[in-house]
Order: sequence, then C-alpha cells, then structure tokens
Amino acid sequence: MTTTVPLPLAPTADAGCCTPERAPAVTPDTAQDLARTFKALADPARVQLLATVAASPDAEACVCDLTAPVGLSQPTVSHHLKILVEAGLLHREQRGRWAYYRLVPDAVAALAGALTAVTAADD
Amino acid sequence: MTTTVPLPLAPTADAGCCTPERAPAVTPDTAQDLARTFKALADPARVQLLATVAASPDAEACVCDLTAPVGLSQPTVSHHLKILVEAGLLHREQRGRWAYYRLVPDAVAALAGALTAVTAADD
Repeated sequence: MTTTVPLPLAPTADAGCCTPERAPAVTPDTAQDLARTFKALADPARVQLLATVAASPDAEACVCDLTAPVGLSQPTVSHHLKILVEAGLLHREQRGRWAYYRLVPDAVAALAGALTAVTAADD
Repeated sequence: MTTTVPLPLAPTADAGCCTPERAPAVTPDTAQDLARTFKALADPARVQLLATVAASPDAEACVCDLTAPVGLSQPTVSHHLKILVEAGLLHREQRGRWAYYRLVPDAVAALAGALTAVTAADD
C-alpha cells in the first residue's frame, strides 16, 4: 500500500501572507517570447552588432561595415544578423549587392520595458 | 612576394560621414557580460521564475513556492534558479531545509539600462 504525500500548496508559516504563490507572474506565452528574444542576445557578437547598428547614422548599417567592428567573417556576421532579424530586433533590406540592417527601436524598448517591469514588481 | 590588402578603414562613399565604422559600440568585455546575462534569461522557465520571485513579497521566494507556478519539478527549478544566481540576477540564501531566492534589482536594472542605451544611441 502506498500513501500519497500532498504537495505544499499553502505558503509556509514564515512565508508572506496573501501571495498568489502559485500564479506565474508572466504568462507562458509572454515568457516564451521574451526568452526567444533574450536568446538572440545571448552571444557577444550579436550584442556588439546590435549596438553598432544602433550607433550608426539613422540606426542603419551596411553588412559591409559590420564585419570589421566585430572581427568576424562576413558569413558569420550575416548569420548573427539573421538571428537578430528573426528576433525582430533588426530590419533587413537588400539594396543591390549589400544588405542593410536597421534597428527596430520599439522591439528593444519593449525588451527593456519587460525588465523594468520585473524590478517595478518589487514593491 | 606577397602584398597586404589594407582593411577598409574609411567609410565607403555611400555610408554616412563621420561614423567610426570600425569601432565597436560596446567593448568586447561588456558584450561578453551582457550576452552571459541574456543567456541566463534565454529560457521561458527562467523568465517566469525571475518574474515570480520579483512579484513575491520583498521580492523573495522559497524554492518550495516556485515549483507550482512554472509546473516543473523541484530539481529542474533549482537548476534554473542556479543559472539565475550565477548570472547575478538572484541572490540565494539557505534557511534550514529550504533555499530562498531574492531579486537583485540593480542587476536587472543594469540590463534594462543597457538595452535603453542601445535605443538612445539612435539619434
């Protein structure tokens, strides 16, 4: 015969009262979206590329001008840029021979806002 | 006899003038640090855990109250929490049987600030 041990659903005595302990603070969908975007930035070269595009005139740069700052080959840089585009952080436009990448400020601001909301929840 | 091909130090004709094209907008060390922290958040469970801890009273939660919100086993939750601690986003304190995790607001704010700086560079 086996007995089932109930999970500790109720807060322990020394935990704060009145907390919706079991409610996740963000929805699974939101967490999935945020994690996907954070993953796009989980590489130093991609952080440098995003910052370099952002610091370019009109927040736009030709891929031909992005290889030197990060010290990587153009195929590697293009691979990293593709990930940033797929994450919605950069917009890509082909002009003749070269691809140009432009910052999507709203996407970066939304990510910063999500982090700020986390600290704002601390009250 | 070999000849060396100079790297394109000067901006190309159709690039904006006066841009330090070859200077990375963030230092390699900063990019490395940021990427490492973003990597800690590149998982939906970790995003949910960080947000749930942040939304707890005093931005602190017992690991025993964190398994239900994310619907994962305690070893898995502990693994994810360890990554958040190593990234400096949470502080861990053992109290008797249970580990308690507290938000490190400055670390989250620094990350948000780095993203805000990226958008601010767009001028």
